[in-house]
Amino acid sequence: MKQLSFAVVGAGNGGQAIAGHLALKGFKVNLYNRTYQKLLPIIEKGGIELEGEVKGFGKLNVITDDMEKAIKDVDIILVAVPASAHYKIAEEMLPYLKDGQIIVLTPGRTGGALEFYNIIRRREDLDVIIAETDTLIYACRSSMGKSKIFMVKEVVAVAAIPNDKTEMVVEALNTAFPQFIPAQNVLETSLNNFGAVFHPAPTILNAARIETTKGNFEFYREGISPSVAKILEKIDNERMMVAKALGVNTISAKRWLKESYNAEGENLYEAIQNTKAYVGLLAPQTLDCRYIFEDVPMSLVPMSSIGKEIGIKTPTIDAVIHLASVMHGKDYWNIGRTAEKLGIQGKTVEEIIELVEGKRKEVTIA
Amino acid sequence: MKQLSFAVVGAGNGGQAIAGHLALKGFKVNLYNRTYQKLLPIIEKGGIELEGEVKGFGKLNVITDDMEKAIKDVDIILVAVPASAHYKIAEEMLPYLKDGQIIVLTPGRTGGALEFYNIIRRREDLDVIIAETDTLIYACRSSMGKSKIFMVKEVVAVAAIPNDKTEMVVEALNTAFPQFIPAQNVLETSLNNFGAVFHPAPTILNAARIETTKGNFEFYREGISPSVAKILEKIDNERMMVAKALGVNTISAKRWLKESYNAEGENLYEAIQNTKAYVGLLAPQTLDCRYIFEDVPMSLVPMSSIGKEIGIKTPTIDAVIHLASVMHGKDYWNIGRTAEKLGIQGKTVEEIIELVEGKRKEVTIA
Repeated sequence: MKQLSFAVVGAGNGGQAIAGHLALKGFKVNLYNRTYQKLLPIIEKGGIELEGEVKGFGKLNVITDDMEKAIKDVDIILVAVPASAHYKIAEEMLPYLKDGQIIVLTPGRTGGALEFYNIIRRREDLDVIIAETDTLIYACRSSMGKSKIFMVKEVVAVAAIPNDKTEMVVEALNTAFPQFIPAQNVLETSLNNFGAVFHPAPTILNAARIETTKGNFEFYREGISPSVAKILEKIDNERMMVAKALGVNTISAKRWLKESYNAEGENLYEAIQNTKAYVGLLAPQTLDCRYIFEDVPMSLVPMSSIGKEIGIKTPTIDAVIHLASVMHGKDYWNIGRTAEKLGIQGKTVEEIIELVEGKRKEVTIA
Repeated sequence: MKQLSFAVVGAGNGGQAIAGHLALKGFKVNLYNRTYQKLLPIIEKGGIELEGEVKGFGKLNVITDDMEKAIKDVDIILVAVPASAHYKIAEEMLPYLKDGQIIVLTPGRTGGALEFYNIIRRREDLDVIIAETDTLIYACRSSMGKSKIFMVKEVVAVAAIPNDKTEMVVEALNTAFPQFIPAQNVLETSLNNFGAVFHPAPTILNAARIETTKGNFEFYREGISPSVAKILEKIDNERMMVAKALGVNTISAKRWLKESYNAEGENLYEAIQNTKAYVGLLAPQTLDCRYIFEDVPMSLVPMSSIGKEIGIKTPTIDAVIHLASVMHGKDYWNIGRTAEKLGIQGKTVEEIIELVEGKRKEVTIA
């Protein structure tokens, strides 16, 4: 396979890390950010300095706030922006996309690829592939052209729409990162979204504590007490019920802590308390944080909305969405990824699976 | 009017205070408590020592765990138990009630008198009056036959079922306490329940803080931040919408703070922060507290359930009920005072008003 070229869309924590890392590995990488100001220190350096688990300097090819310049002629476009920006990014990108390009949302949160696909297919003749990962490949912090990578994850699942393109996407990504593996389909990457379980409910259920202490407490270990953990278990259960109804492989949040951090316990509360990676992690400083404004509309709303389409009730998820909406004075039901925005409104389980799998209905001739 | 005799049911904070105060005023008072153990120090003293705003010794007539002995021959039975015990107390009392007795739930929380009435009318020929107050007359703490009364409230509203008995109940109570005034009907006393606004939501939204600090923070001033106050405003609004639909006079929680504590502000958050009476009041030490196990099923559930009967949606109240149910592992919807338990299931607004007002439908002869 020829050496692939990349565009990274978004120069936040994840975008700077992945762009720098790809460049360090020798790939041609363009970096796009909508706000030019944020690109200035990177333009000055000509690339990204990497520290932590990955060290070195990644020289970038193009650093720009011009979407057309950023994505023209590249093979793979990695979208590393908050999920709440996916819709707008898709619309901005649409006129400049070319046949054969691969777009990977990293991560998609819940329904990212479906939402993107639903916009991209406005250009009916365009032949591009939309994919999403279930998580960002790094734990990292980036600022001003310096990215500190605390950890490169061992496994990141990817799926494309339609699903028969997943293998091609994984092969392409594997030329840079061996960590990417195929998921069952985008319903799996979308529903294996543990941020949906771990982020919004503890934020809402510690709202006053966040506002009166400016987040000065351990988010996971003090913010998730036995009663709060019961809420998280219920949310996790509702997530798994939706996944199960769609025939999707999923594991519980408790098992995910075991697989990711080797943390165990009788219940989710104990497993969280036994997760060493959570020690010392403080809460967000305000309620105006991604745990709410990204995870509520882009993770919880699509889980609830997909559930409603297929007859699975999600009362605990719904309660968190409602309280977040009241606290922020925003209608997250309306802002969020509803079944309509995902292009699956009114579809049966079979029709949703058919959409993501790209299979045609079999015709039985009597 | 002859000197009235009283039974006080429940020897908790409120029961000891009111029994002692009535006795000190010279009334014949029996005190009942289900747990005999709790009565022992009171039996030893022969009554209640009062301190604080009311000082002296109230000698009691009968101190007993025998319901029949406690209530036989008394004119007025004051029920001063958590609202979650009203149902059981009503069933225990039912065989011993006699015509002409007045039962006053103090307070009824939401739907207390309706629930009591619904049980009492199993004895079809029994002619007693059921009434409820909107609040307890004291701010007090009682223990072991000593009661400290911090404040005697200036005004306590009372209503009876049917409503045309309210005046008689107020007159009877006024022989002991001038503070009692008539409410519009039991829907007013039930829906002017500000505990429903101030107690459960801040408890749920500070669950982890309560569990990790054992309630060591100021419940109102630190536990109700701007975002939490927005939830309270929404709950208050839903309460007022239900009240309005039933033609009931109600004021907002913000205005109630002004009227009760002379506290003002641009919004509910500011008014709470400006309420001097809340300074230093700590949170409950655990989540297993009356703010949940009493206020959720006996205040929020009936508000929501009455709302559903008459077409008023209460999504914020419902979210709090759901989260409380998950946290406590109890189905508060089922435990709580539903429209069915209040005897108003399937009734229209007109029929509910007719039930509490005791009016017959007018018959128009064409």
